Amino acid sequence: MRELCPALANKTYFNYGGQGPLPAPALEAITASWQRIQELGPFTTDVWPFIEQETARVRGQLAALCGVGPHRLALTENVTSGCVLPLWGLPWKRGDELLISDCEHPGVVAACQELARREGLSITTLPVLELCCAIPQAALDAAVLDALEQRLTPRTRLVALSHLLWNSGSVMPIPAVAERLRQHPLQPWLLVDAAQSMGSLPVQEAAAAADIYAFTGHKWCCGPEGLGGVALSERLLEQAQPTLIGWRSLRHEASASSSFHSDARRFEVATSCVPLCSGLATSLDLLAAEGTAAQRLERIQAGSRRLWQGLQQIPKAQTLLREPPPAGLVSFTLESLSTTAVVEDLGKQKSWIRRLDDPDCLRACTHITTTSAEIEQLLLALGRLAAR
Amino acid sequence: MRELCPALANKTYFNYGGQGPLPAPALEAITASWQRIQELGPFTTDVWPFIEQETARVRGQLAALCGVGPHRLALTENVTSGCVLPLWGLPWKRGDELLISDCEHPGVVAACQELARREGLSITTLPVLELCCAIPQAALDAAVLDALEQRLTPRTRLVALSHLLWNSGSVMPIPAVAERLRQHPLQPWLLVDAAQSMGSLPVQEAAAAADIYAFTGHKWCCGPEGLGGVALSERLLEQAQPTLIGWRSLRHEASASSSFHSDARRFEVATSCVPLCSGLATSLDLLAAEGTAAQRLERIQAGSRRLWQGLQQIPKAQTLLREPPPAGLVSFTLESLSTTAVVEDLGKQKSWIRRLDDPDCLRACTHITTTSAEIEQLLLALGRLAAR
Repeated sequence: MRELCPALANKTYFNYGGQGPLPAPALEAITASWQRIQELGPFTTDVWPFIEQETARVRGQLAALCGVGPHRLALTENVTSGCVLPLWGLPWKRGDELLISDCEHPGVVAACQELARREGLSITTLPVLELCCAIPQAALDAAVLDALEQRLTPRTRLVALSHLLWNSGSVMPIPAVAERLRQHPLQPWLLVDAAQSMGSLPVQEAAAAADIYAFTGHKWCCGPEGLGGVALSERLLEQAQPTLIGWRSLRHEASASSSFHSDARRFEVATSCVPLCSGLATSLDLLAAEGTAAQRLERIQAGSRRLWQGLQQIPKAQTLLREPPPAGLVSFTLESLSTTAVVEDLGKQKSWIRRLDDPDCLRACTHITTTSAEIEQLLLALGRLAAR
Repeated sequence: MRELCPALANKTYFNYGGQGPLPAPALEAITASWQRIQELGPFTTDVWPFIEQETARVRGQLAALCGVGPHRLALTENVTSGCVLPLWGLPWKRGDELLISDCEHPGVVAACQELARREGLSITTLPVLELCCAIPQAALDAAVLDALEQRLTPRTRLVALSHLLWNSGSVMPIPAVAERLRQHPLQPWLLVDAAQSMGSLPVQEAAAAADIYAFTGHKWCCGPEGLGGVALSERLLEQAQPTLIGWRSLRHEASASSSFHSDARRFEVATSCVPLCSGLATSLDLLAAEGTAAQRLERIQAGSRRLWQGLQQIPKAQTLLREPPPAGLVSFTLESLSTTAVVEDLGKQKSWIRRLDDPDCLRACTHITTTSAEIEQLLLALGRLAAR
């Protein structure tokens, strides 16, 4: 896989959680798809079977990864669309409460705030960041469920919690949270931002348990930017009306008076870029050829563990987690050094990590393409910076 | 231009209103853009200037075509997103009326119906199709304005009218409609579906007059599928809150508590496919090299006029319009022949037109790439079908 990624040839790359590298065969598949569309179409009876084939192929792959039927999988442009679109058409009542973790992405939080403003909902915060930093993963599930218990009220109507937290790198117990919510009188909907989990963890159990499990293909799946998906629960498909409506939402695309698709396509909109489907399908095939999701996670963990352990040897370095990370995100600070300056300094050495605002920290990701040499090189560079 | 389009090499193509051909240099620009992103990034400080450059370039080109500043131009995935996203965040009041022409696309109509259902609005229809079929273009503007006058009520809050009607091929007097709406006490918003006009007509006057002027790059502009835009009025930018909110909507992308962009970027969402910007920019450059929008329209009209005139010579053929079309859309029927059968029959001869549901008719489009030989070939084939 690594040799197939031009992006990895000229730099030391640790930003998989921002965007993954696009393997050359995926770009070739994208280009070939466009050529085929031009050859058959672009708008002819001859081209529709090809477009249906490419769309159905990636829908099927993503649904299988999520452990749900293809009818529960909508293709989207990005994670945000997948998180937010199904929210607007739910049957909200004034006074309903949204319980949102303190580790959610600003885009999703801002969308929930606007939803709350228009629908007269209230927002409460589920504090998990502090737990992640203080409690080992083995005890974290219970601590998160305990925090959930304390924050649930009779009016809680939705819980938003990422599967793999983008800042601390901790894994949240999504199936257990879903189970707890099923016992609540209102059965609150569970929105899961899967931006960091899809492609890095086995996600079947969590995706099948959530109401909205939204992800993108361009991070850990190493697909092209501009294509993602969302797995939706059967009850959400029954309860939520589409909001951004176009010909793809309609059962009969030529008739506005037709009903919406009853399956997840009701949340698809209008024309999107089909060649991206061909590209993501190829990237997913390449990942699958590297092993099962569980086997790949072991390789990812081996890298993040080595990085985490090396950071413990750098006097000024402090990792957010007190033990090796459960996946590929390693967040840390270098005492007294500005995170902005560290990113800039490493970038000059063609070594790329990123900084986060909340908490203000550095984040380096390891994927199955990460080599031991890269990790040692990063640790050496960080050690030098810390020693200045 | 024609020689640059592989799609035109192996078929006789008249479906520009469905999707335009992608010129080879545009696909090359897309591929090169992806390669550059992989070389510089994909997620590094080095890649941001390139992404900003490619995004700003196409935004500037599209804004210039619309005759508005770039701050009024949002990039979208397709026409529907551009039409519908700005609608949801407008300050609706129960009982407001939406006046929608009877020639709007089913996707937009279905979205307005759902908006009306949730916000307690009512929908009335502005009948223009019958006028288009009965009245010459010179008198059509007055007839449309007259119909508008009859349907406006004190509660009209929005008018939806396409610039170039996708079924009849008639041009609507958008600037005059906008002027009339400004005199209405509620100053109803004007939503214009520009799917067929952008890239085929000079659109500056209409785009600058509308509140929402939404288009795609993949039809008459001959760009890739999956990228379009919307020009928004200053008042709409002030009055409408974004609904599909992500990091690109936020003034400070890392903070959910930051305000939304005050410019059109408030309606952009999250990660989309940047290489599509490079492709559309290239297609727009290629079109510009063929002449001004007015000059290109003359060439388009020459083709549609020849096709329209030829159809008058086929006994069973009946054009929807009573005179040569004002742009590139030529709609017609062949008495007693099913439109589905005609499309299928022509397709077997590698000649591609499409059918529409409402009204049930055939539609052939001419673009600047259409040759006289293609038109004669289509007329010959239609004549043969009619003579059976």
